[in-house]
Amino acid sequence: METMKHGADVLFILLGAIMVLAMHSGFAFLELGTVRSKNQVNALVKILSDFAFSTIAYFFIGYGIAYGAGFLTGAEHLVQKNGYEMVRFFFLLTFAAAVPAIVSGGIAERAKFYPQFIASFLIVAFVYPFFEGIAWNQHYGIQAWLKASFGEEFHDFAGSVVVHAVGGWIGLVAVLTLGARSGRYGKDGQVMSAHPPSSIPFLALGAWILSVGWFGFNVMSAQTLDKVSGLVALNSLMAMAGGTLSALFA
Amino acid sequence: METMKHGADVLFILLGAIMVLAMHSGFAFLELGTVRSKNQVNALVKILSDFAFSTIAYFFIGYGIAYGAGFLTGAEHLVQKNGYEMVRFFFLLTFAAAVPAIVSGGIAERAKFYPQFIASFLIVAFVYPFFEGIAWNQHYGIQAWLKASFGEEFHDFAGSVVVHAVGGWIGLVAVLTLGARSGRYGKDGQVMSAHPPSSIPFLALGAWILSVGWFGFNVMSAQTLDKVSGLVALNSLMAMAGGTLSALFA
Amino acid sequence: METMKHGADVLFILLGAIMVLAMHSGFAFLELGTVRSKNQVNALVKILSDFAFSTIAYFFIGYGIAYGAGFLTGAEHLVQKNGYEMVRFFFLLTFAAAVPAIVSGGIAERAKFYPQFIASFLIVAFVYPFFEGIAWNQHYGIQAWLKASFGEEFHDFAGSVVVHAVGGWIGLVAVLTLGARSGRYGKDGQVMSAHPPSSIPFLALGAWILSVGWFGFNVMSAQTLDKVSGLVALNSLMAMAGGTLSALFA
Repeated sequence: METMKHGADVLFILLGAIMVLAMHSGFAFLELGTVRSKNQVNALVKILSDFAFSTIAYFFIGYGIAYGAGFLTGAEHLVQKNGYEMVRFFFLLTFAAAVPAIVSGGIAERAKFYPQFIASFLIVAFVYPFFEGIAWNQHYGIQAWLKASFGEEFHDFAGSVVVHAVGGWIGLVAVLTLGARSGRYGKDGQVMSAHPPSSIPFLALGAWILSVGWFGFNVMSAQTLDKVSGLVALNSLMAMAGGTLSALFA
Repeated sequence: METMKHGADVLFILLGAIMVLAMHSGFAFLELGTVRSKNQVNALVKILSDFAFSTIAYFFIGYGIAYGAGFLTGAEHLVQKNGYEMVRFFFLLTFAAAVPAIVSGGIAERAKFYPQFIASFLIVAFVYPFFEGIAWNQHYGIQAWLKASFGEEFHDFAGSVVVHAVGGWIGLVAVLTLGARSGRYGKDGQVMSAHPPSSIPFLALGAWILSVGWFGFNVMSAQTLDKVSGLVALNSLMAMAGGTLSALFA
Repeated sequence: METMKHGADVLFILLGAIMVLAMHSGFAFLELGTVRSKNQVNALVKILSDFAFSTIAYFFIGYGIAYGAGFLTGAEHLVQKNGYEMVRFFFLLTFAAAVPAIVSGGIAERAKFYPQFIASFLIVAFVYPFFEGIAWNQHYGIQAWLKASFGEEFHDFAGSVVVHAVGGWIGLVAVLTLGARSGRYGKDGQVMSAHPPSSIPFLALGAWILSVGWFGFNVMSAQTLDKVSGLVALNSLMAMAGGTLSALFA
């Protein structure tokens, strides 16, 4: 019975990890379809490499900062509960790696290759785990202070602030710092050269992969099977439908 | 133990819903690859929007017609059994939305945008649930009458008639009503302009997504994990292999 | 409880089978993106047809050779344990069919259509099951002899030798036998015509599908949910990250 629960939890969170890993291919194809043809390969290599750098950064530094735990212990610790802790790491890594991917989309075609990898590494190793530890692991007593002051902790179920807002904030700074593509606007702010998406089909492929993977992102944030909630799935679905219709009417 | 069963059932049917949701991207890429280049974006937007309209139509009207149940009740009802009812809605919605997607493929390049959405809405809100209620929820006593007359109910495990034949029937009427693309045939019926598929790779991508998603469509039609059947998976597999070989030899 | 375990095992191995089935589309798009434009459709049809031939070969011959069991028995045997045996066949078939897919990638653009299908059929019907039976089903006493001689059996968890090395060995022979594409090299070995990949985006799509599916290949090789291991998932992840970074630096 215990083994069955451990196995089911491993499968549950592993499926989430796999689906959010697939979302990184969605980021890649979304960016590939959006940028100019000459930058398509750059977009592909960047997203994949960003994910690899994030894996290393989060494995050796970030995960330890956020949760105070690492994996450089004996194998006998690793195999407990069918290795649930390691799959949880995999799942949380796919969240962490989403932050540089969000930033990357914002500054597509405007950042040099290697400096961006260094930034990604630092974000996943230090910046993201700082916020992650505060929101999800009671770091620095900030949740306790919020609870004492307002009667409730700050609640973030699936990373809407920890992942998406943090990514957006960093992306905003990066966009403002880097400015527009050179040659994009004239002196008076008029558009000098338009950059239509190079491939709507691949852009759509990326969007579809993200739409489908979203259910892994949100539902598997419950982290164990007994806490799974159909309401989370339904809300994700209605958000997708509502967003599509709003975009259509706009 | 009860929680574990509820959680497992939610995961089981959710995986089916996610896979059939992904099949809608398969419909999109299949149609995108098949139509002329100028209609590729139209195909993408149409399938996605159709899905969004179907979600609204089935949520507010269709599901109530088929199963006499809705979700505008208190949250305390919704969270029972880990929200199984809501994920079941999601799963059945992906079936319902397949009907306009099937029709859409049949009349690709020949229907105006907004009239088709109205038709999709009406199909998913009223037509499909009418048949669905008869076959899967004992509506109008038709199953009881069949059982009394012939000794057996009409059995449709995963929508071969309820979804696919209904979609095909409506599609046939739509094809006959709309006729051929203008300029496709001359007065004597000779082909005036051929429309080769604009992208075999995207057509194949759509077909592959549908092939893989099919296992979610069929196997998860068991709806709860205890009724899962490997025979269903094997039959789906053999059908795929047989269909491929038949097409190859033909 | 027993039913729940059977259901969970069926779901577990089915998810593996579905993910490795999807990997075959990854093989297809990887090859499509790599070959010249004129051979794209050929690559698609070949991989799909190879899978269909493999299904027939493994169902009627190969599975019986490796495990001494078949499915042409009464339905009452098939439905035992929720049909677990049939889903296990599906899972193992996706492994078996990977062998001709590996060979196919190696000799892309250089093999005739029908002779290759015959070779694929023979590989999946006879050659692969021969090794599979030795490694995973104690055939010919070879494992027993290894154990007696060296104290341990030959251990292959997820097909690194049984699938990938066997595929590579056959592919090597095929490559050496077929030689280079005609016109590729001049008399003195100099490159006469380069064949750059026809589509990096589709090549990347194939690679992403394979990366994601890999977790089904490796993790679900445990075959039952109680034996699932997070360490396998983590190792697969670190291998992916390490491989990406190595390629980047090289």
